Parts: sequence; structure tokens; C-alpha cells
Amino acid sequence: MPAEIISVGTELLLGQITDTNATFICERLAEFGVDVHFRSTVGDNQDRIVRRIRHAIEQADVIIMTGGLGPTSDDLTREAMAEACGRGMYRDPESETAIRAFFERRGYAMAEMNLKQADVPEGGSPIPNTCGTAPGVFLEHGGRLLFAVPGVPREMREMTVREVIPRLREHGRAGSHVIRSRALRVFGMGESMVARAVQDLLDTQQNPTIAPLAGQGEVVLRLTAKSPTWDEAGRLIAELEAEVRRRLGSYVFGEDDTGLPEVVVRTLAERQEMLSTAESCTGGLIGSRITDVSGSSRCYAGGVVSYSNEAKSDLLGVPPAAVDEYGAVSPEVAELMARGVRERLGTEYGLSATGIAGPDGGTAEKPVGLVFVGLASPHGVSVERHMFTQNRLDNKLRTSQAALDLLRRHLLDAGPPP
Amino acid sequence: MPAEIISVGTELLLGQITDTNATFICERLAEFGVDVHFRSTVGDNQDRIVRRIRHAIEQADVIIMTGGLGPTSDDLTREAMAEACGRGMYRDPESETAIRAFFERRGYAMAEMNLKQADVPEGGSPIPNTCGTAPGVFLEHGGRLLFAVPGVPREMREMTVREVIPRLREHGRAGSHVIRSRALRVFGMGESMVARAVQDLLDTQQNPTIAPLAGQGEVVLRLTAKSPTWDEAGRLIAELEAEVRRRLGSYVFGEDDTGLPEVVVRTLAERQEMLSTAESCTGGLIGSRITDVSGSSRCYAGGVVSYSNEAKSDLLGVPPAAVDEYGAVSPEVAELMARGVRERLGTEYGLSATGIAGPDGGTAEKPVGLVFVGLASPHGVSVERHMFTQNRLDNKLRTSQAALDLLRRHLLDAGPPP
Repeated sequence: MPAEIISVGTELLLGQITDTNATFICERLAEFGVDVHFRSTVGDNQDRIVRRIRHAIEQADVIIMTGGLGPTSDDLTREAMAEACGRGMYRDPESETAIRAFFERRGYAMAEMNLKQADVPEGGSPIPNTCGTAPGVFLEHGGRLLFAVPGVPREMREMTVREVIPRLREHGRAGSHVIRSRALRVFGMGESMVARAVQDLLDTQQNPTIAPLAGQGEVVLRLTAKSPTWDEAGRLIAELEAEVRRRLGSYVFGEDDTGLPEVVVRTLAERQEMLSTAESCTGGLIGSRITDVSGSSRCYAGGVVSYSNEAKSDLLGVPPAAVDEYGAVSPEVAELMARGVRERLGTEYGLSATGIAGPDGGTAEKPVGLVFVGLASPHGVSVERHMFTQNRLDNKLRTSQAALDLLRRHLLDAGPPP
Repeated sequence: MPAEIISVGTELLLGQITDTNATFICERLAEFGVDVHFRSTVGDNQDRIVRRIRHAIEQADVIIMTGGLGPTSDDLTREAMAEACGRGMYRDPESETAIRAFFERRGYAMAEMNLKQADVPEGGSPIPNTCGTAPGVFLEHGGRLLFAVPGVPREMREMTVREVIPRLREHGRAGSHVIRSRALRVFGMGESMVARAVQDLLDTQQNPTIAPLAGQGEVVLRLTAKSPTWDEAGRLIAELEAEVRRRLGSYVFGEDDTGLPEVVVRTLAERQEMLSTAESCTGGLIGSRITDVSGSSRCYAGGVVSYSNEAKSDLLGVPPAAVDEYGAVSPEVAELMARGVRERLGTEYGLSATGIAGPDGGTAEKPVGLVFVGLASPHGVSVERHMFTQNRLDNKLRTSQAALDLLRRHLLDAGPPP
């Protein structure tokens, strides 16, 4: 029998927060071959939580609840679990000690209601919480395994990985198969172009499956394999991945968590070369994304946000006459910005972006979404023109992607560093 | 009787995507006083979708499904809705025409399976889709109202607001009360400090309710009122908001969608003053967040990302000797950076940030998380020291918040521009 996830919290039913906890738990269960057939969300209402648990017990083998373990009167998961299973509650002395110690360490006064978090349905046991006060709950009931983990995402994640998954394996609930997936990240082709390139694979897919998805300024091709073992699933994915890469070539820039900034930083660090940036319409986003990558100081010198024309001339040496003649959004100015920052900071590469992010400032000749990205390198300068969307944040992100990809492709072709 | 949301899609049960659709629908329903007691998620399996619809019909009055309306064999919502209600299907001629026209306009060949999207359970009617091919479905069945909207977020949002909510009102399902909420955004106090400041309000809350939440580099206090009318709910919130603002004073920097960048841009634009930035550890994030705000070019000149020490001296005029003597992460260098960029770009304000973002680069004396933010203004220079966390992205975000808040507080106290 499959698993069910129950998310508890009225704020979820009011749409005040998005349920990323259930996503995380589902993803981990999939990895360990635990099928999830159903997810549900109930508010902070004991009767409804009890009804949901009873119903879940009829149709699922493993029930994982998240939320409702806090100290306030709205937190009802422990009570509901006990009631649904017709059990009383006991106060676990170790949990009580741990909760008292948590407050003492921080020098806070503890309200008596915090001890409610040490309560456990009879026959069940607390699950230690290493990053917060609320212990989880583990209960075997009528052949079912019931878990309750906190709603605080960090505590939920830690407890799921460290405690829930291992107990599912111990109790033989990890599946006879695992589901493993891999995301191939593509820049420079639209979703439908990618789909056409792999159309026959899409049409005949069984295992692994393959699905193109529009990502943020890129396309993601997700390969998912189901297999008795993790390694076998990996082999199935690797075969399909090789075929996809053969077709899409260098349009595939990275995989899983490796975005364009990670690829660029890794490549530059390997080559021991330095980059600087000159940004207009992106306002610092390219630099910020590069410096999101740990270790980027080894290959990123910094740069200029030349939002105003004065900044272009004062900090980058772009002649005001060039801005007057060609306009701030032009291939000529993109080139001068890239050259300017490269020279000022003495780096191997200078990367620039200038465009009309919108929603205002567009003209018939230079509409919102028009962008030029430029790269100055030891081999010269190249500039590319792009036409993006009407949306400001979208334009900024796509422009940063286009600039980083211009550099990535250059580095692919550049041969070894001198 | 309340409403239930059913999200359809195996990718949700595998944790491959997060269900933001249900969040959106819940939020809209709350605004119009439609109670949601239950949300559920099922995979692309017709039997299970049918079972869920039948169960929902027993406990809910309004059922809104999202997902499973596409053209492929995995898309089963129409079929399941018809089966659950014991109805046949018919092909709606207008939808068929609209789907054919959609492909013609784009010059794509249409696969026959796309026409399946024109199918509707008997007795029901299609809901037009103005931004995609898949029409929605509306069906009255045994006194219940059933809706199906697409899973593509943009199409789902548009159809929910334009079609679903008005039909709920027409059919008298919009509630006798509405729920209205307001987020007050706080910087400079931790969550527990905020909670202590409003503890008596937290203890006695009924309507409106009040809840502090840790946000991204800030604390959010959410006030939620339930009332027969939108205006009355607004009055209830306004009363409580006034009391909260009286207690938290200028720690409250904004509300709802108004973040620190919006507040700073609006204030500078009103004062007709200009800002420039000099960023080290934030790598361009402050500039990027400012330029996320439409119209920021009126008050933001740009700046320097002085990630390397060379950038600090070449672009900002920070003497290398000062970096040698005090270290790049020091109040002295923060001051020189702020002064330097303000002078170079001739702006009223220069804002700087230097720190150790981590995870590497910390020492006993200057640990990861140590940050200085500086502000140079017509009134002089001020520098603040902060100690943040071990996490790089978290440190970058908090540093950008601290810098923007330093400027915000200065502008609050600055009196009218000269």
C-alpha cells in the first residue's frame, strides 16, 4: 500500500503560504521507492484532522503528517493522532528535559505550554528534533506507520532525512524500486524547439520518461527512471542522457543544481582567468548571481553598474558622444562597456548588458525587451542582440542568462588558456 | 458547505514541482469568503481521480480541480469528472474551432489529440481559455458546483479570477463573510522581539488574528480579519494595524508587496535625490534589487561591484594602504567605499556593503557573517556592523536588507531635501 502526506495548517487553506514541505517529503519518498498516491491538507481543526487520519489509515500504509506540532492551542497534530487511533497520551520525560534545556541555553523563560510538545500518543515514541523544540512522533498502529514531523521547513527536512526515511527502510517500506531523476538544463532553444529535437523520444518514452519544462530563462529536460536499484536507475538515465546530449549538443549547459553561474565560475576557475561585468539593464543581477557561487572571488573581480549615462562615461570610459550617437541601448555601447570594464579592471573577460527592461522606456525602434549583451576577451569583442518579453523581472533574468551563456560558449570554443 | 481544491498531477506526488496553484486558488477563495476545509492532490490515474471527486462531492459544496486538462493521454480530469458524476462526454464545437484557430495563428500543425481538449461532461460547459488551448470545465451536479481549470499557472490564474470567482458569486457561493489580510513588514527586530512587543495582542487575538512569521531577512506580522464586508474587514485591520505601528514604530518599513527596495526608491524619487552603491560581499544584489523596482532609473545612478581589492582602489579610490591596514572587511573601508562611489557618481547618497559572505574566508577575528554597511550622505557618513549567519545566500540577502534599511532610516530622519 502507498503513502499519504497530510499537511496541517489553516494558513495553507487560506493560501497564505505555499506547501513546500509536501514537495520535499514527496521527493525524498520517490527517491526511496515509496509510492505516494495522495496528499491532503487540513486546517487546524481537531475533528477534521482526526477524520483525515482515519481515512488515510484505510487507504495508505505509511502516513506522514507535517505541521501542528508547536506549543500553541492551534497545534493539534499530537492530539488528533492519538484520538484517531483511540489512544491516550503520555508526556515523554526525555523530551521534557530537552525542551527545558533548549530554553535555558538561550536564556529565555519557558512558558508551561511549551511542555505540551513532549506529549506522545500511547504506544508511540518521540522523534528527536535537533534544530528546534518540537519533537516529532512515530506510531505503529494496526500495521500502519504514522509519522508527524514539524511544519518549520528546516526542522521538517532534517527530521525527514535523518529519522523518517531510515525508519521506513528498517520497517521494509522503502520500495522494491527507486525513482531517480535528472534535470538537463538548456539555454538558447525554446521549449517547443527542444521538444521537436526529442519528439520521437517523447512519443515512445516509457522508462526513463522524459519531459521538457519551461524554466526561469531556460528549458529543463527532466529524465526520470524507475528501477529496482539506484545504480540501475542511474544507468537507464545515463543512456537516455547521452542520446539527448548528442542531439542538443552544447545547448545543454548544465544539470540538476548547476546553473549558468556555476558553470561559468567553475570554468573560469579551472582556466585561472578573471571576469568583470558592466551592467545597465540588469542593475547588478549578473554580478549577484556570479557571487552567489561560493569561491567566485577566485575568478570575479567585480564591475560596474552603469545604470545612468554618467556612470557609463565616468566609470567605464564610454564616450558620451557614443551614447548620443548610437543610444545607450545599442551594440556599439554594449561593446564599449565590455571593453571598458575589461580594461579598467585588467581581467581576461569583460561582460556587458544593456537593454530596455520595461515596462516604460520603450520606443517603436527600441521596444521594451530589446537587449544587447557583449563580451570582450583576449580574442576580441562579440555582441549579441536579443528580444525578450514585456516583463521587467523576466527581462533582467533572461538578459543575465544570455550574457552568462555568451561567455560560456566562448569558453567552450576558446581552447586552453594562453 | 465548504470548498475543496483537487490538484491533479503525478509530478506533484513525486515532488518534482511545488503546488503554487492551490495556494493561489485558496487565497482568492478566502478573499471572497469561500471556506476551504480540504485540499487534496492525486496523480494522473483515472480511478483515483474519480474516487477523490466522489469523496469531495460528499463533503464539499464547491470543488475546484486544477491540472490534467492537456491534450495527452495522461490528462484525465475531463474523463474523471464525467465518470465520477455518471455522465457521458460531448465535443463542444466552439472550443474545437478555438483550438484549431490557436494552432493556425501560430502556424503550427495541430495533432488530432489536441481536440480532446474540447470535450466536456454532458450537462457541463467549457470555460474559455484566453491564454492557452485548454478550455476549463464548469458542471453543476447534485447541487454541487464543479470547476476544472488548467495546471499551467498563468492560465489557471486568469481563469480563476475572470471566470470561477464570478460564477461562485452568481451562484451565491461567495461567503457571508470575507477574509482580508495585511502583512506588516519589519526590519531590525527578530521574530521573538516582535512577538514580545505584541504579546498581549497575540494572547487575546480573535478577530482580526495576528501572527508573526520569520520572512526572508525580515519579520512579517500578518493581520487577518473575517467580516461580512470587505470594508468592515479593512476597518478591523486598520484599527489593529494602528496599534501595532504605535508599538513597533519605524521598525515597520512596509506592507504587503512593499519591500525595502520599493520604499527606498519611492522615497528617493519623492525627494528627487540620487543614490549610488558600492558592493563587495553582496556582489551586485543591492543594485539588482533596487532596479527590480520599475522607475528606479529616476533615483539610481548605478555603482561599483568592488569584489576584488583592485576594484576598490581603481573604481572607488579606496587607497590600497587602507585595505592593508584595516582589512577589506572593516568599518573604515565601508566608509571609504560609500564616500568613493558617492563622489565618483555625484549622487546625494552612496551606500556600501563589505563583509564575509562565507562559507570560507572567515577568521577568529573576522568570522563568516561579519558585515559592515555604510552610508555617505550630505550629512556625513554612518557605518553599521552586523553579525549574520553561516549561510552565503542568507548573508547576501540580509546584508542588502541592512544597507537599504540604513538608508531608509536616514531618509526618515533627514528632513526635507535641501
